Amino acid sequence: MQITKPVSFENVVSMEDLSAEDVMSFIHEAIEFKQGKQVELARPVYAANLFFESSTRTHTSFEMAERKLGLQVLNFDPSNSSLKKGESMGDTVKTFQAIGADVVAIRDKKNEYYKDLIQDPNIHLGIANGGDGSGQHPSQSLLDMMTIYEEFGHFEGLNVAIVGDLTHSRVARSNMEVLTKLGAHVFFGGPKEWYTEDFQKYGEWLPIDELVSQMDVMMFLRVQHERIAADENGSFSAERYHETYGLTREREQRMPEHAIIMHPAPVNRGVEIADELVECDKSRIFRQMENGVFVRMAIMTSMLRYRGLVKSEY
Amino acid sequence: MQITKPVSFENVVSMEDLSAEDVMSFIHEAIEFKQGKQVELARPVYAANLFFESSTRTHTSFEMAERKLGLQVLNFDPSNSSLKKGESMGDTVKTFQAIGADVVAIRDKKNEYYKDLIQDPNIHLGIANGGDGSGQHPSQSLLDMMTIYEEFGHFEGLNVAIVGDLTHSRVARSNMEVLTKLGAHVFFGGPKEWYTEDFQKYGEWLPIDELVSQMDVMMFLRVQHERIAADENGSFSAERYHETYGLTREREQRMPEHAIIMHPAPVNRGVEIADELVECDKSRIFRQMENGVFVRMAIMTSMLRYRGLVKSEY
Amino acid sequence: MQITKPVSFENVVSMEDLSAEDVMSFIHEAIEFKQGKQVELARPVYAANLFFESSTRTHTSFEMAERKLGLQVLNFDPSNSSLKKGESMGDTVKTFQAIGADVVAIRDKKNEYYKDLIQDPNIHLGIANGGDGSGQHPSQSLLDMMTIYEEFGHFEGLNVAIVGDLTHSRVARSNMEVLTKLGAHVFFGGPKEWYTEDFQKYGEWLPIDELVSQMDVMMFLRVQHERIAADENGSFSAERYHETYGLTREREQRMPEHAIIMHPAPVNRGVEIADELVECDKSRIFRQMENGVFVRMAIMTSMLRYRGLVKSEY
Repeated sequence: MQITKPVSFENVVSMEDLSAEDVMSFIHEAIEFKQGKQVELARPVYAANLFFESSTRTHTSFEMAERKLGLQVLNFDPSNSSLKKGESMGDTVKTFQAIGADVVAIRDKKNEYYKDLIQDPNIHLGIANGGDGSGQHPSQSLLDMMTIYEEFGHFEGLNVAIVGDLTHSRVARSNMEVLTKLGAHVFFGGPKEWYTEDFQKYGEWLPIDELVSQMDVMMFLRVQHERIAADENGSFSAERYHETYGLTREREQRMPEHAIIMHPAPVNRGVEIADELVECDKSRIFRQMENGVFVRMAIMTSMLRYRGLVKSEY
Repeated sequence: MQITKPVSFENVVSMEDLSAEDVMSFIHEAIEFKQGKQVELARPVYAANLFFESSTRTHTSFEMAERKLGLQVLNFDPSNSSLKKGESMGDTVKTFQAIGADVVAIRDKKNEYYKDLIQDPNIHLGIANGGDGSGQHPSQSLLDMMTIYEEFGHFEGLNVAIVGDLTHSRVARSNMEVLTKLGAHVFFGGPKEWYTEDFQKYGEWLPIDELVSQMDVMMFLRVQHERIAADENGSFSAERYHETYGLTREREQRMPEHAIIMHPAPVNRGVEIADELVECDKSRIFRQMENGVFVRMAIMTSMLRYRGLVKSEY
Repeated sequence: MQITKPVSFENVVSMEDLSAEDVMSFIHEAIEFKQGKQVELARPVYAANLFFESSTRTHTSFEMAERKLGLQVLNFDPSNSSLKKGESMGDTVKTFQAIGADVVAIRDKKNEYYKDLIQDPNIHLGIANGGDGSGQHPSQSLLDMMTIYEEFGHFEGLNVAIVGDLTHSRVARSNMEVLTKLGAHVFFGGPKEWYTEDFQKYGEWLPIDELVSQMDVMMFLRVQHERIAADENGSFSAERYHETYGLTREREQRMPEHAIIMHPAPVNRGVEIADELVECDKSRIFRQMENGVFVRMAIMTSMLRYRGLVKSEY
């Protein structure tokens, strides 16, 4: 795998659009940003973050990425928006475009909301998908890949388990696809009823007790709080889930020396992962958040580059 | 009509305060900003946007104008404000003044909320009215005028129709007055029961089918969604309204070659204007939003100039 | 009392941590900021304001202080936060830290919420307490002290009355302690049932009619609107409260020439203080708000200095 040149994209909405080479280019550029790389803009550039579905982490991370790049960030509060007056998302985006936004990060609960937007001939600004329904979440996938690459320096031959609520996860599908593309072996854990056909093509399901001793990366997914609450004494009660599918201290001690723990956060402490392990030596959970800013700088820069708004890089 | 000098205002709250010459000065300065004019400030200047009534478009447009002028923008979320604790708007404004704001844009649902503020001897900061109840909305009127002037280069003798919910519109009254002042001929369309006495002095009501072939400017007003919803099978149902008072494709084709379509947005697509016409060649709807930023730069600059905060312009 | 050197603190969460000397250093530095002192930062610095309990005044004042220091301010809307998903405050703070925040101002309704945070070995960013439940509110105490010092140039021997809802006030306890430490004499007024044992050690209770003629500083506390509303005809009705414990015009005229009126705001006009006195010559209420920005600049600077982020001061 060779890195050819900095990526340039009109929009960044789905991992499916990215080749293995593209992913590696994003990772390399994110690492450069982490090491202090800066860009000089061709003129003042304006970003807006349209989070129609709430998210502290992703929203703040995009905003930090934008500020570190020197973009001006326009505030937007969806609860006060014209969408309440029945305006379509397309018209909201075109409003921001008319007002002068060059790039937007959008999150919405509708799957593939971005398809209409990127096909609209009157929309010219760059769209970074910050998560759509149970669909894509490319910045999360890229930060996960960056964190693994930063740790191991390669993907080929790595064993990576994705454990938890596979069916409802925005990142499970993207990550199994991209990991496979990059040469890693994917495994699955968690409640077996969530290990449906689409996952079976990508990798084997194993009990958590087998996974922990064999994996290089244990990637846990968040179990919806609602799901647990609705089933307090059943198989998804917090305690039962933790015992059957979660990372207990005992299981963590059987992980190989070099193996790492990942989670997109927010963690349900004591459910997916024991409270005291969230910040243990093997955990890369807060490192993932840190890397998220640099990955989003790379995403935004790819769209600015496409538009000729990057004057120089140093 | 001759442009004498850049405008300087303590506050910009109502179109009624502006002479035809003032309006032309605002338009000319907004056009200069559109062409790249910049201002240098005498010191760091702080703006706050107090939108007690929600508005994506106007709020974001003011914020963009402020940022383009190099102002620092203070965030304010009315849903978290002391107003909930029963504080008066005057005390909220004085709080922002004490904290260091130099100018504020305010929107509130109370008609003429600004009268108490501009008469208060302890309020010194500049107030730009971003809309009061069913009253004034000077930045919207000015951006409408700028868009017409940009198109035709003059107002004298132009035929302009204002079509729709006249009685509840913030801009219908302001626009008919200022258009008349500037030498245009005003006509009205839409449901005739809304064509009340105060409008009759300013211009004739005509059926939409007559208006489209005679007007230079067709200015549509938003029909309140609530009004339509409450009357789903009556005369304001979306379909009935569109057929009787709206701009259909057939009607658009009978407009003169040079005529333009305007709307303050958000548009109810398929009600005031057919979905496919919102972005047609004759439409200036997104141009209006674009111009809104430059008009608001001119408004803010007039208040900064009044306070000696503009060091130089180039 | 001698000022030795600029303060440097890891966090600023409670007045109890501050010696009389520390308080004087904060006051002196705040006065320097008011006179135009500026700091040069060692690198771009990021601040976040996490207001889990709403507050226009304190929130905006912290934001202004941050901007005047040249910090980048990250937006955060608690109503859209992961806290709704059950995330702990510690994890939210660590998220902002991972994303790159250097300092945060926090307000929360839980008393001493900050104790867990400042003891957490994984939290390194600086925490400024913007108010915890009925506990501490150090920036408010410091701005009160700054306002008194600015007026009189000393604290020794001053008579200061704290009048109102003592038991529920965040500032009553802090202020009586720090004023005593600084050499002032503290008195109390307001409903006597609120003058509980912990206040009795610090000073005498006197009827409002005696206080007004003897005090140098009349410091009123806000009576909770809810408390008044729930008791409309009882002893806390707005009118009854005003007559019995409030500052009427008649009482104000019996205050010494040099005496001043203070209130943390928002004022219930006509309850704690007569409407027409809120902005009278003796009132320092809006001066307090003005000073709040400079005190918060001093607080933030003390945490930046601790972290080596202040390159130079001039």
